[in-house]
Amino acid sequence: MPARPRIVIVGAGFGGINAARRLASVPADIVLFDRTNHHLFQPLLYQVATAALAPTDIASPIRSMFAGQANVEVQIGEVDGVDPAARTVSVRGVGAVPYDYLILATGSEASWFGHDDWRAHSTGLKSLPDATRIRERLLAAFEWAEREVDAVEITRLLTFVVVGGGASGVELAGSIRELADATLRRDFRRIKPAEARVLLYEGGPGLLAGFPDALSRYARARLERMRVEVHTGASVEAVDAVGVMVAGQRIESANVFWCAGVAATPVAAWLGINAGKHGAVPVEADCSVPGHPEVFAIGDIASMTGANGKPLPGVAPVAEQQGRYVADLITARIAGRALAGKFRYRDQGSLAVIGRSAAVASLPWAKLTGFVAWVMWGGVHLFLLNGLRNRLLVYVQWVWAWLTYGRGARLIEGEPPAEQRTS
Amino acid sequence: MPARPRIVIVGAGFGGINAARRLASVPADIVLFDRTNHHLFQPLLYQVATAALAPTDIASPIRSMFAGQANVEVQIGEVDGVDPAARTVSVRGVGAVPYDYLILATGSEASWFGHDDWRAHSTGLKSLPDATRIRERLLAAFEWAEREVDAVEITRLLTFVVVGGGASGVELAGSIRELADATLRRDFRRIKPAEARVLLYEGGPGLLAGFPDALSRYARARLERMRVEVHTGASVEAVDAVGVMVAGQRIESANVFWCAGVAATPVAAWLGINAGKHGAVPVEADCSVPGHPEVFAIGDIASMTGANGKPLPGVAPVAEQQGRYVADLITARIAGRALAGKFRYRDQGSLAVIGRSAAVASLPWAKLTGFVAWVMWGGVHLFLLNGLRNRLLVYVQWVWAWLTYGRGARLIEGEPPAEQRTS
Repeated sequence: MPARPRIVIVGAGFGGINAARRLASVPADIVLFDRTNHHLFQPLLYQVATAALAPTDIASPIRSMFAGQANVEVQIGEVDGVDPAARTVSVRGVGAVPYDYLILATGSEASWFGHDDWRAHSTGLKSLPDATRIRERLLAAFEWAEREVDAVEITRLLTFVVVGGGASGVELAGSIRELADATLRRDFRRIKPAEARVLLYEGGPGLLAGFPDALSRYARARLERMRVEVHTGASVEAVDAVGVMVAGQRIESANVFWCAGVAATPVAAWLGINAGKHGAVPVEADCSVPGHPEVFAIGDIASMTGANGKPLPGVAPVAEQQGRYVADLITARIAGRALAGKFRYRDQGSLAVIGRSAAVASLPWAKLTGFVAWVMWGGVHLFLLNGLRNRLLVYVQWVWAWLTYGRGARLIEGEPPAEQRTS
Repeated sequence: MPARPRIVIVGAGFGGINAARRLASVPADIVLFDRTNHHLFQPLLYQVATAALAPTDIASPIRSMFAGQANVEVQIGEVDGVDPAARTVSVRGVGAVPYDYLILATGSEASWFGHDDWRAHSTGLKSLPDATRIRERLLAAFEWAEREVDAVEITRLLTFVVVGGGASGVELAGSIRELADATLRRDFRRIKPAEARVLLYEGGPGLLAGFPDALSRYARARLERMRVEVHTGASVEAVDAVGVMVAGQRIESANVFWCAGVAATPVAAWLGINAGKHGAVPVEADCSVPGHPEVFAIGDIASMTGANGKPLPGVAPVAEQQGRYVADLITARIAGRALAGKFRYRDQGSLAVIGRSAAVASLPWAKLTGFVAWVMWGGVHLFLLNGLRNRLLVYVQWVWAWLTYGRGARLIEGEPPAEQRTS
């Protein structure tokens, strides 16, 4: 090993960013790769999708995050393989890049459970292009409906199907309802936006799996009060260009949004390891990849069992804590010390927002609903957002939206997508 | 003519918006067409192009602007022809829409002076997609350069050519210099962003044609102090995939931004009228189209001579004033009154910004430069922006940028465009 070891981090999500930051004072050369030039604050992606925030509000340039950390070099490029024997990663268009330590933190992507044909007719919500695509379709559906004369087609255009009742699905469904009922209320002359239908389908028995039952029931009741049509135990059987088949029933819809499944990016295949659940890499208790103590997998691509015997959830705090843990482990090894202890996830609770003044918070010390949970949700997310500028802008827009019911990012940048229409 | 006349307005730019608003209390059915769903505040487009503002900050949903004005119906759709004899406009995908009065306000688009092959290798700056395309190329050029090993190619990637020394070109060139010198200063490890070259070419004898000579000279001196390489009397002779030929000299550049020419949208052809300068419709003194007193052309598509004997410039105030004038004329005709007087342009002055704390203001009562002009520029543009929300967000971002030299909208949404590179 050279005097100054080389640490390669792949992915500038919550895991990669936290690992890199924690390594600030380590005498090592760190190379941080990402396919894009920005760190994305995914928890607010649904607000971009529903025209409440601009894409730039939740994206931070990775370079400026590390401008002052001299041991980090940021490289924009796509890593498409690992050679653990040679200790190199392969970067598309660049070639092999050597490492002494490797932290893989490439996250997850939307998954259609093997139904790749469904993908063409529904939109996932994992990236900024996904979010702007949903935004454009959402806004365009009302535009097309306003121009349409056929009543059946108007109904189809104004039927919004959200598949998946996890936090993203719940947040998206509630937000679409608010857009239709409040923001767009006075904007059309022929259609009544409030007559739009929003249907939320969840295959499991309840919404917000992982939250306590009482909060899950509150979320459902609250969504139903907002006129979201919630269906649990309802699996999607088909998705095509004009609608979906769910639990034996046919729903005609021009807008199918997919929040149902995620799968790890194909890191297991790169490493030649049998993937665990959702394609994740079953890691050791120190987040290392079996047989490769110098290679770590963290966040959504790592499969690990928590203290309660259940798999750790695919959420930002797990990735962040694993990132910092692995950074400490590498720091200790470089210093010739051993790090005591395995990775241990400290669950600080979960939050999900349902709508205006309504959220749920499952905390170690309390379960909260309603306005209190909503204020907490807002405060926590503002705090976690990267950079004072983004915090300020998001805060201004939230206050504005709360006062006026307006959404300022109602932009269809190009012409509305035509494939939504049948006629 | 029916009891309640039908006024069709085509284009929701400065002209169309002002006409529609001024008609608020007229007993008429107004249909306002635009190809997009938003009114665009074009004077700040260069700030989107240089990552200072988000697209949504300068775009306002047309529907919400007219939500409270019951006599206006907004329709998103592309008008692609007029039949003055039948008194209909043709809307793509919809068909013929009748009118009693027609206001054409479709504006101008970038023009490559008949060199349509240049268009493929340079980016105009007239629309939001243009601005985000420039932003992505600008940021990607630095990314590609950081990855490049060949010194000649690095120089080519970091050479930014702005063609056209009007307000847009001056603003864009100054802004690119600030991005390279301040915003990106500490963000790269291999390249030095400050070593980027910014070249501004103007075919005419001076920058900011239309401004007094003293202000034009100030702009040039100020840009040169910022290290923009200004060349006047320098016409572009060729643009290709790897550079430009200007005034007999070859410049290798991966980034050619086109602010040189505009041409009116093809309204003259729709009407079967011989177009005037830049394709504009030579209108009567009341902005009507010759031979059709019920059809009006305003803004960039109208060619009209001012009180000083010179053609009216293609700027927002002309379009706005013509919009209001034509609205008053139609109001009077509907009421059976005659409107006294022709259209008369009241020139309230011109502003152009050069860089941080530097602008020029040519006002009827004074010529200002430097900080005072810059503060005036900022205040006027905040005032003119549509809606309190956008004003607030733009103000917050300007203050932030002024304090920190940061630009928050440094987003390459997808992967960086590959066609910028030769290797």
